Amino acid sequence: MPLKQFIETMLPEIEKELQSQVDRLKQNNSHPFHEMLTYHMGWTGEGAGPEAAGKRIRPLMVLLAAASCGADWRLALPAAAAVELVHNFSLVHDDVQDNSDKRRGRPTVWTKWGVPMAINVGDALFVIANQSILDLGKALPASTVVRATAILNDTCLELTRGQFMDMSYEQHSDLKIEDYWPMIGGKTSALLSACTHIGALVGGADEAGQENYRSFGYRLGLAFQVQDDVLGIWGDEAVTGKSAASDLVEGKNSLPVLFALEKNGAFAKRWKQGPIRAEEVKEVAVLLESEGAKTYAVEMSQQETEKALGFLEGANPQGEAGEALLELANMLLKRKQ
Amino acid sequence: MPLKQFIETMLPEIEKELQSQVDRLKQNNSHPFHEMLTYHMGWTGEGAGPEAAGKRIRPLMVLLAAASCGADWRLALPAAAAVELVHNFSLVHDDVQDNSDKRRGRPTVWTKWGVPMAINVGDALFVIANQSILDLGKALPASTVVRATAILNDTCLELTRGQFMDMSYEQHSDLKIEDYWPMIGGKTSALLSACTHIGALVGGADEAGQENYRSFGYRLGLAFQVQDDVLGIWGDEAVTGKSAASDLVEGKNSLPVLFALEKNGAFAKRWKQGPIRAEEVKEVAVLLESEGAKTYAVEMSQQETEKALGFLEGANPQGEAGEALLELANMLLKRKQ
Repeated sequence: MPLKQFIETMLPEIEKELQSQVDRLKQNNSHPFHEMLTYHMGWTGEGAGPEAAGKRIRPLMVLLAAASCGADWRLALPAAAAVELVHNFSLVHDDVQDNSDKRRGRPTVWTKWGVPMAINVGDALFVIANQSILDLGKALPASTVVRATAILNDTCLELTRGQFMDMSYEQHSDLKIEDYWPMIGGKTSALLSACTHIGALVGGADEAGQENYRSFGYRLGLAFQVQDDVLGIWGDEAVTGKSAASDLVEGKNSLPVLFALEKNGAFAKRWKQGPIRAEEVKEVAVLLESEGAKTYAVEMSQQETEKALGFLEGANPQGEAGEALLELANMLLKRKQ
Repeated sequence: MPLKQFIETMLPEIEKELQSQVDRLKQNNSHPFHEMLTYHMGWTGEGAGPEAAGKRIRPLMVLLAAASCGADWRLALPAAAAVELVHNFSLVHDDVQDNSDKRRGRPTVWTKWGVPMAINVGDALFVIANQSILDLGKALPASTVVRATAILNDTCLELTRGQFMDMSYEQHSDLKIEDYWPMIGGKTSALLSACTHIGALVGGADEAGQENYRSFGYRLGLAFQVQDDVLGIWGDEAVTGKSAASDLVEGKNSLPVLFALEKNGAFAKRWKQGPIRAEEVKEVAVLLESEGAKTYAVEMSQQETEKALGFLEGANPQGEAGEALLELANMLLKRKQ
């Protein structure tokens, strides 16, 4: 089980890199601003700690991708910090946009300091993400830095497109499955594909290798998101850590829901009548399953998983880091080894 | 008068570059998103046109700085677009943060499409700014691109710090003059200094030359902001284009106000009692002037102007572009030639 050992070695280095990047704001006149960022990152304030920080899956993927190309993963630390900062920038803005008052069990930035400050905190995290990836230049050629920065920002544009689609779709009850893939491609897959892509670039993989790593991350993101959709409707509360079936109450345009809307049966009829109430959630979930939506989504998630693993095989990741990368993918997809 | 000719030649090229950068969002599923950006940039929607687009001062400064180093200014177009996109990203988020419903005479993005969409529009403009500056790589070495991208993002961090200070200060009535300079340094000067700095870098100036260009832009920004503060209190409505003295009603922590607060006389007493009402604005402006606040601010603006012009002289800008750069500075500071 090499993943556990890699995590134990890498996580402290990731936190150290992240903290030194965020410390760019540790100056006169901006201490309270710096604290808003360190609070969100899980380092300070009430409830600070590993739970509040999250699992740092994305930077781990960058480092494991680089290591599995045979490189010293420490070279990739600025890129690992950059993707995690992008992820957190999008979370801070998401929480404002979705009006979410809790994040990893703690009050969100906007509930503590207001919407104007939260917008600015997200902006600063994104700026620091860019400053962070430019730090690759301390050990790597400028051409690699430019390429990595371009990949990161192309990804961020996809994030904003995905976010746009997600927000637009909230006002529609007649979406099609074809609307789903570009949305989750932007919201979930783009950043995961940037992790494995940039990791491989820094690790010294050739173009074909980078493309395999990139596609692995992208497909992994799709598989993960579809699985998350299934768990959001039929998952055990203990597994998901949130109220089971809450996605139905929230009216989320998940893949199972879009599948059933296209079938235009009893579920579609109920869905279009207005919000699902908490007390009818179980009944509606059973109805949705009876129309084949769960089977379809599970099948789609498996298809994407197989594609992801195929690309990973094509990438031919080396050594224990390669094994750990596969293990991380399986962990994300909650698959048995 | 070479400035007019430069503007006539450069402006259409700036708009073309900006449009081709923003067109990155012209894809399936995101046409309405693209339109939000083109609306804000002044190209589409009600009231579109040069008035709505603004004067594009910042990209002009980039191009003139590059040209005055003897380079072909077309090389600097991606950098010129980048600074203008950063400026506009900050305007879109500012309008949300300040709850402003009008920008250049038109409804702001958030009033048309809501706060969540406006946050996302600002984010996208910032992403495209980064993509834009990376396009310098089409004609320049990667090391120059990395340096320019670093300057841009260091500037953006200063922008977020300035924004943080500005928002924090709104809740205080006991600020000191020493709080003022870092705030306007971040909010106004940082981006102007990035314009002249990046322009000189792309134009091929050496380190010392770049530093002179950078300092010129920075001091110009300070002088401009202090002058804007004076006009915001004592300016003629026809000159400023907004209701004279409105800064007093808005409770803005401008330099004249901070000067008088430190003097702790009659003005300070009135200021601390609560918001200035529109009907007492003239009287309060006279009081403020009688305490020496206008003389002090005008003097400060002149000092910064002289420093700015000193740095420009040190930069030794060449040819007609050099003359035009001086002319642009004088225009900004509303000085006679």
